[in-house]
Amino acid sequence: MYLLENWYVAALSVELDTKPLSRQILGEHVALFRSESGRVVAFADQCPHRGYPLSLGSVVGEELVCGYHGFTFDCGGVCVAIPGQDRIPGRANVRSYPVVEQGIWVWIWMGHGEADYGALPATPWLVANDEWSTVSGVAKISASFDLLVDNLLDLSHETYLHGGSIGTPEVATTPIEVEVDDETNAVRVFRHMNAVECPPFYSRTTGLQGKVDRWQDIDYSPPGFYLLHARIAPVAQPPLPDGRDDHAFHMKIFYGLTPSTETSVYDFWALARDFCLGEDEIDRFLEKMQRGVVQEDVDALNILQSRADDRREVSEVSVKIDRGGLAARRVLASMREAATRR
Amino acid sequence: MYLLENWYVAALSVELDTKPLSRQILGEHVALFRSESGRVVAFADQCPHRGYPLSLGSVVGEELVCGYHGFTFDCGGVCVAIPGQDRIPGRANVRSYPVVEQGIWVWIWMGHGEADYGALPATPWLVANDEWSTVSGVAKISASFDLLVDNLLDLSHETYLHGGSIGTPEVATTPIEVEVDDETNAVRVFRHMNAVECPPFYSRTTGLQGKVDRWQDIDYSPPGFYLLHARIAPVAQPPLPDGRDDHAFHMKIFYGLTPSTETSVYDFWALARDFCLGEDEIDRFLEKMQRGVVQEDVDALNILQSRADDRREVSEVSVKIDRGGLAARRVLASMREAATRR
Amino acid sequence: MYLLENWYVAALSVELDTKPLSRQILGEHVALFRSESGRVVAFADQCPHRGYPLSLGSVVGEELVCGYHGFTFDCGGVCVAIPGQDRIPGRANVRSYPVVEQGIWVWIWMGHGEADYGALPATPWLVANDEWSTVSGVAKISASFDLLVDNLLDLSHETYLHGGSIGTPEVATTPIEVEVDDETNAVRVFRHMNAVECPPFYSRTTGLQGKVDRWQDIDYSPPGFYLLHARIAPVAQPPLPDGRDDHAFHMKIFYGLTPSTETSVYDFWALARDFCLGEDEIDRFLEKMQRGVVQEDVDALNILQSRADDRREVSEVSVKIDRGGLAARRVLASMREAATRR
Repeated sequence: MYLLENWYVAALSVELDTKPLSRQILGEHVALFRSESGRVVAFADQCPHRGYPLSLGSVVGEELVCGYHGFTFDCGGVCVAIPGQDRIPGRANVRSYPVVEQGIWVWIWMGHGEADYGALPATPWLVANDEWSTVSGVAKISASFDLLVDNLLDLSHETYLHGGSIGTPEVATTPIEVEVDDETNAVRVFRHMNAVECPPFYSRTTGLQGKVDRWQDIDYSPPGFYLLHARIAPVAQPPLPDGRDDHAFHMKIFYGLTPSTETSVYDFWALARDFCLGEDEIDRFLEKMQRGVVQEDVDALNILQSRADDRREVSEVSVKIDRGGLAARRVLASMREAATRR
Repeated sequence: MYLLENWYVAALSVELDTKPLSRQILGEHVALFRSESGRVVAFADQCPHRGYPLSLGSVVGEELVCGYHGFTFDCGGVCVAIPGQDRIPGRANVRSYPVVEQGIWVWIWMGHGEADYGALPATPWLVANDEWSTVSGVAKISASFDLLVDNLLDLSHETYLHGGSIGTPEVATTPIEVEVDDETNAVRVFRHMNAVECPPFYSRTTGLQGKVDRWQDIDYSPPGFYLLHARIAPVAQPPLPDGRDDHAFHMKIFYGLTPSTETSVYDFWALARDFCLGEDEIDRFLEKMQRGVVQEDVDALNILQSRADDRREVSEVSVKIDRGGLAARRVLASMREAATRR
Repeated sequence: MYLLENWYVAALSVELDTKPLSRQILGEHVALFRSESGRVVAFADQCPHRGYPLSLGSVVGEELVCGYHGFTFDCGGVCVAIPGQDRIPGRANVRSYPVVEQGIWVWIWMGHGEADYGALPATPWLVANDEWSTVSGVAKISASFDLLVDNLLDLSHETYLHGGSIGTPEVATTPIEVEVDDETNAVRVFRHMNAVECPPFYSRTTGLQGKVDRWQDIDYSPPGFYLLHARIAPVAQPPLPDGRDDHAFHMKIFYGLTPSTETSVYDFWALARDFCLGEDEIDRFLEKMQRGVVQEDVDALNILQSRADDRREVSEVSVKIDRGGLAARRVLASMREAATRR
């Protein structure tokens, strides 16, 4: 069951052009494109006439022309031309979804209710600015949204699945703290690894050597937005009481989790850092590393889903490392229950 | 539901040889081959012994030998040899379907009733003669038979889907007339585009320049035979009252529509012209153009079917250009209803 | 329905290493590997924690570490470590299947009852010795176990399906004798082709020319073990009354038939000969020939299964050559019925 009345990442901003993009989001086929003036538009990807995908049509000025029989729509989805006749029935309009382009991500509202613009996650780090440098990408996973949430809420797997890159032994062994914000449904998981060996990829980018403090603080806003605050600093130098933390290096790791179908999910990712600003080589290094990490998750979740499809009964043994994931499951279950009642 | 008691194109004549061809027609697997004397034969593609496809067997003289255990059949489907024994049970015979080779096409009767040879569509243009030159081919589409009928009965899509070749703006905008012959079930659609720009591919083959009259008269004999009479002529020079039309160029475009399964269909096509007779270069040009046009239809129908499979509910908005397709749908529905009552 | 309480071949001995192998056996995913000391282990391929395939884990010494979150198991399946905590719940153990490495094959017991070691088929020819030379391999077939049993119990198909190699006309025409041992359920099929042309591949390996006696005696121990005793000898020189048969050449052809799913099966094969011992060139020749024969069976059974999936009703005509296969069907049916009653 999809949690419809929420914002989800639909596309990277750079993916959208006058050549439409087809994406299945929350089970619905969506055609995403820019008009020639640059406006971002999302239509139900199905011409009202005979159902041909509008993503196979052509953008002409501020209109989209269906590639099968030429039905033509303005950016609001209103049908403005039908070949061979002047009268245009109202039923010929196509559903247009609310979209917001906010920095490197384009968000979509698939709900039937009015779009709640106040609920749009704030992502100032991902809008062009002088303090953060960003790399980003997207992967499609042939696994359920819930398996991806499990994966991201329990980072102890870094030690084993991503042992070649971001995973060090301490990630799995360091105890975590979990908080759920009953107001906002946010799930927070804190893992403070103090006086641990600096992982190679942080050494390379920060110049720190030997022991460091490495903090991983997850802030998950269900269903679709996940933010990991990573902090690397010299040992025993916490942020100042007023919050300043200039002696530390910060990386924000973002995930936009967008269900595609019941058993597939888009994994939009972005990394923002407050060091090595604008250094192309570091961009390329981090992008390559993160692509590798995401691919390891993709491979693991694909096989987990395929095994789940085979299985007659699901049994699990939950342990301490699972507390973040279990908290997220409880929040999602209660949101789904609330959506059903509505 | 298949309309069984009808003729369908099963193969191009040139496709058949002593190496059997396997084709699924109206849901049934059929083995098509020629005996060594050249006789065309169609068997149920399933050995009565253990079900092995007879299309994997070998033609020896006027018999087919199963490739698994050697059961042997004459051209009428009678089992004439079983290894290891002399007695041959009657149940060992295989079903043989009536077939007719008529010019470039081989027709098959899949019905349970007696084959109605009088109902075989007349295709004199497709039998070797001095007045018409022909090119032909076949494509398999992963879409339902009904989607292909929709496609062919509404040629306004030429303007958009085939805009690079046969589609000109006038095809979509010129009003059509539709007739249904209650006796024969034939559906006819007339589109007379007068004083229009000659499309490039007709200029090239006919030598006509500037404005022409371009007529497209569809004559669809449901379920499996479609004939489009295309006429290109100097402006305002209709056929003479006695029917003679020597100042015009004619092209007959044939489609044999043969359901394979509920969601796949064979699209046998042929083009016959009464100009540039026997010119190889024109043959190659027309064959290449038509293959491209058919491939555009294949791509469009494949995606339409895959979207239809995804969709919870089908909604359509029908307009004037759809009147031919709607008439064909009505005729097919009434034929299916009649077949159910029988 | 699987006959669980039996031994099946799970792997070739040479397939197993410290890098685990994943195989689906009797519907269950199984992880097969060797510990660093060489012990063969078979686990349910599903970590009790979150179901990740243990076959993607790493062998460290005598333990297997799950590749997702690091749960660690000893060779008996007991969970010995969980990251982030000391207490290990008993439910964290993984099912470990009894396995026996016996020469070139590793056998597995998938049953819920105690493994019956006395029921393990004896295969002395396949354990390293001075009297027999062996080649072996494995193929996976996308067809049911029952179709493979049909295939192997009726060798008359050699004449048609394997006509290019082992099939001669006499295989199909020579009458067979069939015996069923009510005690052991063994099915035996005897085909003694006397004074027949020596097939080319036996001429090449034995040096015999012209007419020979060629015997094919099948000894099938349902469900999973099949042994064909092939004997090639000068004409009219049967084995001596005391059983000695030194003037003949013998080949034992083994098949381990292991259901993977309801519609797929592993076909483990091995050829042991008592002539040309240790000759590499003959090994390569026989291995290549047998791989070709098995591939012809794979192709035939794959298409038979795919047609069976399509078919509304199955009809068959059984004849004399089918008596071995029909006997095996009856035995398997009674074993399944007995298993249901248990």
